[in-house]
Amino acid sequence: MLDIKVTKTTAPKAKPDEKHLGFGNHYTDHMFIMDYTEGRGWHSPRIEPYHSLELDPAALVFHYAQECFEGMKAYRAANGRVLLFRPEKNAARMQSTHRRLCIPEIPVEDFVQAVKALVSVDKDWVPGEPDTSLYLRPFTIATEAHLGVKPSASYQFIIIASPSGAYYAEGMNPVKIYVEDEYVRATPGGTGYIKCGGNYAASLIGQMKAHDLGYSQVLWLDGVERKYVEEVGSMNCFFKIDGVIRTAPCVGTVLPGITRMSCIELLEKWGYKVDCESRLPIADVIRAGKEGKLEEVFGTGTAAVISPVGELRYEDEVLTINGFQTGPVTQRLYDTLTGIQWGTLPDDMGWTQEVE
Amino acid sequence: MLDIKVTKTTAPKAKPDEKHLGFGNHYTDHMFIMDYTEGRGWHSPRIEPYHSLELDPAALVFHYAQECFEGMKAYRAANGRVLLFRPEKNAARMQSTHRRLCIPEIPVEDFVQAVKALVSVDKDWVPGEPDTSLYLRPFTIATEAHLGVKPSASYQFIIIASPSGAYYAEGMNPVKIYVEDEYVRATPGGTGYIKCGGNYAASLIGQMKAHDLGYSQVLWLDGVERKYVEEVGSMNCFFKIDGVIRTAPCVGTVLPGITRMSCIELLEKWGYKVDCESRLPIADVIRAGKEGKLEEVFGTGTAAVISPVGELRYEDEVLTINGFQTGPVTQRLYDTLTGIQWGTLPDDMGWTQEVE
Repeated sequence: MLDIKVTKTTAPKAKPDEKHLGFGNHYTDHMFIMDYTEGRGWHSPRIEPYHSLELDPAALVFHYAQECFEGMKAYRAANGRVLLFRPEKNAARMQSTHRRLCIPEIPVEDFVQAVKALVSVDKDWVPGEPDTSLYLRPFTIATEAHLGVKPSASYQFIIIASPSGAYYAEGMNPVKIYVEDEYVRATPGGTGYIKCGGNYAASLIGQMKAHDLGYSQVLWLDGVERKYVEEVGSMNCFFKIDGVIRTAPCVGTVLPGITRMSCIELLEKWGYKVDCESRLPIADVIRAGKEGKLEEVFGTGTAAVISPVGELRYEDEVLTINGFQTGPVTQRLYDTLTGIQWGTLPDDMGWTQEVE
Repeated sequence: MLDIKVTKTTAPKAKPDEKHLGFGNHYTDHMFIMDYTEGRGWHSPRIEPYHSLELDPAALVFHYAQECFEGMKAYRAANGRVLLFRPEKNAARMQSTHRRLCIPEIPVEDFVQAVKALVSVDKDWVPGEPDTSLYLRPFTIATEAHLGVKPSASYQFIIIASPSGAYYAEGMNPVKIYVEDEYVRATPGGTGYIKCGGNYAASLIGQMKAHDLGYSQVLWLDGVERKYVEEVGSMNCFFKIDGVIRTAPCVGTVLPGITRMSCIELLEKWGYKVDCESRLPIADVIRAGKEGKLEEVFGTGTAAVISPVGELRYEDEVLTINGFQTGPVTQRLYDTLTGIQWGTLPDDMGWTQEVE
């Protein structure tokens, strides 16, 4: 149990217009910080007024990207209740990320306590407009000032919070996806399964290329054979082919998404046949599309929850999926997950936790 | 030509003891900074007293590691002259890095001018003890405060400088190398050929594993077949096998080292047969070792210049190279390069530039 020292702001900011929040444009009044010092461990958990970070230009985070993050949301439910969605899963994934990056772990219960404490202090910042939420960004950075390539002797674990608008401000429209065959996101033995900054820096160029070609997201293939589907942009990706719902297995190159995991659990509960253990060749996806068996494609992630895919381009092939309409499974998952998250549906799965 | 505004410190620091500098422990009195703003380009080049960076916790560098660096040195030659070694090569490589990371490029001449300007202002910090140098660290970070995954709209390009001790304070001793076959450093389509932070964060775990096994460095294999040698730690690696000197080709997964390039040019000038275009299977290295044909192995990089390898371990095989002694080609390269860098040998290659 962390003993969190809270220092409240004396100059609260004006709240932004909840109808025009966008994503990542506004930050709340406070932030959570905890320090790590070699020999002392994680210490000094505190909530402070939101402020700039002051770091030596030699801090390791600026040079060797020893940094990682999580993404999660707090949702405003009826009667002013505020809910979190499976925060312990984010905490566990952050531990896995820390291990791969040689950063000392944070106990799951401390992570969840810190998230709840910050949301509690900034509760008024959880927006109430439909489909808005308070986006939470826990992250860890290496702070030691040293130019040698080595794990840092000091870190900061920080949580900031950003009120965010409805992802589908203009309704849930299917997106067009470009299958990337030049750049690679991840490879076995690498960092594809963790949320480290380097994965995202490396992926920007593929994203820009897709945009230039008129596509909004990239579908990444495996880095070894360039043959199997892995992720879409920063989402996991599902394919309903001839009645079976498939998604890439999490075998070291694919981020184990919490929305992904929740979709699999719901689909299995609903009686769908789900295959999340065998790899799916892009050639099979294309063939299914041509044979009329590619019934639905959708991405899953914290930001969009569910993102229907209406078009896939791979090399010279362009597939339109389900007449560029959101499919029934895609819609049902979206409705169910968002219903649980915003508390409009009963939480039969026990996935939400209320912030006091 | 940059119009660099210089603000000198009013509180110069005490210089450290040149006999005990170590690496990356001390920083000079000043730093170079230049800003990038979308729509305006790179602007406001300036030299200021060394100071902390103040950044919003949402700055993109902390989350998506849009960051990169270069490493180079200023050398104290006779009569107080200060030399740089092929700085235009670092500038060009940084451009290549910027392109891969979707960061706007900096003109080569501006980069070199900035480096020279900082060294000139901090010239008294270039140490004069044998084999010491002023290590220079140009780096670029994404500064926009935004949580969306996208190229930043603003950056800072910064140069800091650190007086550094002799790499071989106790003489040039061969190192023991562990051939890593679990973790992967780079894969085609990825970022192995650039100096981005993410490459280094991802490599820490392999380095720690090697240390735990009693080895000082990792030899990375290719990420697809785990069959071909690529780099040692953060150095390029050369193998002299049966009279031919081989090093991994720079085909997208190997950093194009400036020391590597210089070694190849010297070796060819000296009449050695060099193969830096065909890939070298680790199995061939092991076989050559067993047959007594693995004559020398050495790493090349800015920090060590040349690092002789005395032992290689791959799976259960342990090879001792040249009786754990520095070989003649290794020694000749070291003597020649360091002679040119510190100005004790004539610079027939035209590689050095004097800082006025």
